[in-house]
Amino acid sequence: VDETIGAAPGGGFRAVTEAIIGELAELCGAANVANDAKALARYGRDQVPEERYAHLPEVIVKPASTGEIAEIMRIATRERVPVTPRGAGSGLSGGAVPLYGGICLSLERMNRILEIDTKNLIAVVEPGVVTNKLDEAVRPFGLFFAGYPMSEEFCFIGGNVAENAGGGRAIKYGVTGRYITGLEVVLASGEILQLGGKRLKDVTGYDLVSLVVGSEGTLGVITKVFVRLMPRPAHRSTTAALFADARSAMAVVPAIMTGGGIVPTSIEFIDRSSLAESCGMLHETIPYEDAGAMLLLEVDGTHESQVRADAEVLRAVCRAHAPLALILAESEAESERLWKIRKTVPWALKRRTADQSIEDIVVPIAAIPEVLDELRRLEGEFGVAIPCFGHAGDGNLHAHVQKDPSWSREEWQVREPEILTQLYEVVARLGGTISGEHGIGHKRKPYLPLVMSDRQIELMRQIKRAFDPQGLLNPGKIFD
Amino acid sequence: VDETIGAAPGGGFRAVTEAIIGELAELCGAANVANDAKALARYGRDQVPEERYAHLPEVIVKPASTGEIAEIMRIATRERVPVTPRGAGSGLSGGAVPLYGGICLSLERMNRILEIDTKNLIAVVEPGVVTNKLDEAVRPFGLFFAGYPMSEEFCFIGGNVAENAGGGRAIKYGVTGRYITGLEVVLASGEILQLGGKRLKDVTGYDLVSLVVGSEGTLGVITKVFVRLMPRPAHRSTTAALFADARSAMAVVPAIMTGGGIVPTSIEFIDRSSLAESCGMLHETIPYEDAGAMLLLEVDGTHESQVRADAEVLRAVCRAHAPLALILAESEAESERLWKIRKTVPWALKRRTADQSIEDIVVPIAAIPEVLDELRRLEGEFGVAIPCFGHAGDGNLHAHVQKDPSWSREEWQVREPEILTQLYEVVARLGGTISGEHGIGHKRKPYLPLVMSDRQIELMRQIKRAFDPQGLLNPGKIFD
Repeated sequence: VDETIGAAPGGGFRAVTEAIIGELAELCGAANVANDAKALARYGRDQVPEERYAHLPEVIVKPASTGEIAEIMRIATRERVPVTPRGAGSGLSGGAVPLYGGICLSLERMNRILEIDTKNLIAVVEPGVVTNKLDEAVRPFGLFFAGYPMSEEFCFIGGNVAENAGGGRAIKYGVTGRYITGLEVVLASGEILQLGGKRLKDVTGYDLVSLVVGSEGTLGVITKVFVRLMPRPAHRSTTAALFADARSAMAVVPAIMTGGGIVPTSIEFIDRSSLAESCGMLHETIPYEDAGAMLLLEVDGTHESQVRADAEVLRAVCRAHAPLALILAESEAESERLWKIRKTVPWALKRRTADQSIEDIVVPIAAIPEVLDELRRLEGEFGVAIPCFGHAGDGNLHAHVQKDPSWSREEWQVREPEILTQLYEVVARLGGTISGEHGIGHKRKPYLPLVMSDRQIELMRQIKRAFDPQGLLNPGKIFD
Repeated sequence: VDETIGAAPGGGFRAVTEAIIGELAELCGAANVANDAKALARYGRDQVPEERYAHLPEVIVKPASTGEIAEIMRIATRERVPVTPRGAGSGLSGGAVPLYGGICLSLERMNRILEIDTKNLIAVVEPGVVTNKLDEAVRPFGLFFAGYPMSEEFCFIGGNVAENAGGGRAIKYGVTGRYITGLEVVLASGEILQLGGKRLKDVTGYDLVSLVVGSEGTLGVITKVFVRLMPRPAHRSTTAALFADARSAMAVVPAIMTGGGIVPTSIEFIDRSSLAESCGMLHETIPYEDAGAMLLLEVDGTHESQVRADAEVLRAVCRAHAPLALILAESEAESERLWKIRKTVPWALKRRTADQSIEDIVVPIAAIPEVLDELRRLEGEFGVAIPCFGHAGDGNLHAHVQKDPSWSREEWQVREPEILTQLYEVVARLGGTISGEHGIGHKRKPYLPLVMSDRQIELMRQIKRAFDPQGLLNPGKIFD
């Protein structure tokens, strides 16, 4: 019972015993508790491709209510067992990986849309609702959920909140946190906090909703989410712009943001090799072979004439930067086709190699051209490929650092931290940071001091201690 | 030296000695330190009208740099003297009142716009910049600051951040916090924190920027603000809609928010007596005498045709609710004239009586009609006038609870807490809270438990302790 698996603040954790498993089975039903090898393996990782970031839980439990979760936390506190909350497992920082074993608390059964309040424009949902399902559910009311992570077809809204997910519409609509007006949170002690609610403004004390948003499951288990809905834009216009090189493409971004007088919905960037891989996988017929980069530009709005006019502004700015081609989507289907090129990039790059580090750097928008130069420099220096794409309009780029095929895995594991350190030093120098939307998890934890002072990390640690004095919730994430 | 003025966590504060005053004068220049009675009186209150919420500082210091502020905090920590940061003194919760005396740290000399970065769409400003001055400074670049507190002509951006100020455009543009990408903060210890910066997205650890926003000067002194700028909307359209009664007017709000398919910039509400007072003071000629309520509706955008179309949607919804009159502003000057009616309300109500409690309740938007009914009930029950106006589009109403002229001030001071308690209980029952944009300060502190659990208050207290272990910064605010 007292086998120490890992170090926790104030002492070691204890192992999950048969008695604890029995108690969980009694609480949630035996069908909702698992500890067979196959299940444990499935819940021991997220979408981080590298094996070494995985770690098995000791038991998986799938509660169906806030009350059950409160009881699980009371058991965990009593037994000093770590608990790692888990959504869809679609994260990219190892955030849902149970680094110290213990209980994997899967929220997959908490998947109900509890209320769509069309008078207050608020949906109340459980954390296990698939993001796109929420958006579909509110569509008949002329509403939409403005968050738009690229994984919306499988990620959970609870995970979006825990990571403060960004996505493809953040320039205009902001990231997940902007739409969260309230949260129900179970603390490590089993106490239940009600933060915010259906009100749209609130300055009553510190903004604990924003504190829990993006806290990666380290402060509490999110059990209910109040989501602000917006009038669904009736029209959109999507344009793909192909350029000879990345620098020409990226010069368009500040020109649009500062000179166009409009706020586009999306400015997505895809570099040469990402574009070639994606278009190749999709058997795309757009003239991508000669292109050094593609921008995917979108505007949306209520009035078709206004959307057309805004789209024309975007294209005029593109034209001033010598595009190879401008492809205007003439229908919803064509819009979807262009977005498919963007959404397929991660899968196409994954096909090239399993040994890659998916990065999520963010810099002030004007610094993007310099970041791209630095990525080419790192490619040259280390002999690796670093294809790159992402949300150019808010300075957030996904650079996939890919292993040189000639290297052994051991060599890769030595080289990868060297490359990441250099990359993050560049990002820090340019006023950016190491994650714009994927989070720190345990994958980026060692690099946090490159972009954050000791004092700031210590403040976060003290906040963590206030919420979770024993350090039981998702231990080993963000900071030690 | 050891005279105890008030209780602080871990012991009492000490008085400001002549030696400390001398040290401050050496640091900031004698001209920037004052402790004469006239100055102390001027810095002993904010815009809360009631005398009993005022309290004198022992000394006022006006530093000109982050370095000076860090040194002031080191002196305060060494001497165990409380420090109350102060912006324009335009607050409405007693937030800038030095409740335990000590040092009033006025940021009025920290009033430089340090940088307008048009490539990154970020302004870097000191906290003492007048909000409107920032907006004017970025106007030549086709940009604007989307925050719009009603006091923008005299409030400071630092105060806007400290209170997370709302205002008249929050429905579409959100509140101050949405535009804050970074902060420089001096802790009680004198340490300087750099939080965020010019990047538009950041999920690197907990969101400490959002934690400091709205923390009312209790966590640190804000010494630099990174403000996100937006393309300035080229066109706006303002409409005043007069209705027979408040209920008819308020029925329009959810109809616009849910049925119009557009997000208006502003939906401001003014009730019968507020309207009469303001129009009377302005010698307004709009037909307000028969009106039971007025809505001020505004849309803005890039294209004139779109703005006209959106404005027509608003007016169509109004027409469906039997307005007495719809007044469309045909020019900028007419827009300003209509806004003037709204902006004059607080001054007009203040003229009526100095003994009033300016409230800032917020409820889910659909609950506004019920709140208005409850205000009428409280008026009847207590025999007071409670004129009411505010930001109806986001459920945030300013109810001014005004003393019955026949009551003595002593009677008023007994009755006011009874009225506020009942009002806040109504707000809590409807899913709202006691402040939408003015903050808690010390004026609303006794009522916090009506809308917040002990556990949540205790969490905030622990966060406070992490930032300011001796409790020196703005003591006695938000919670004890």
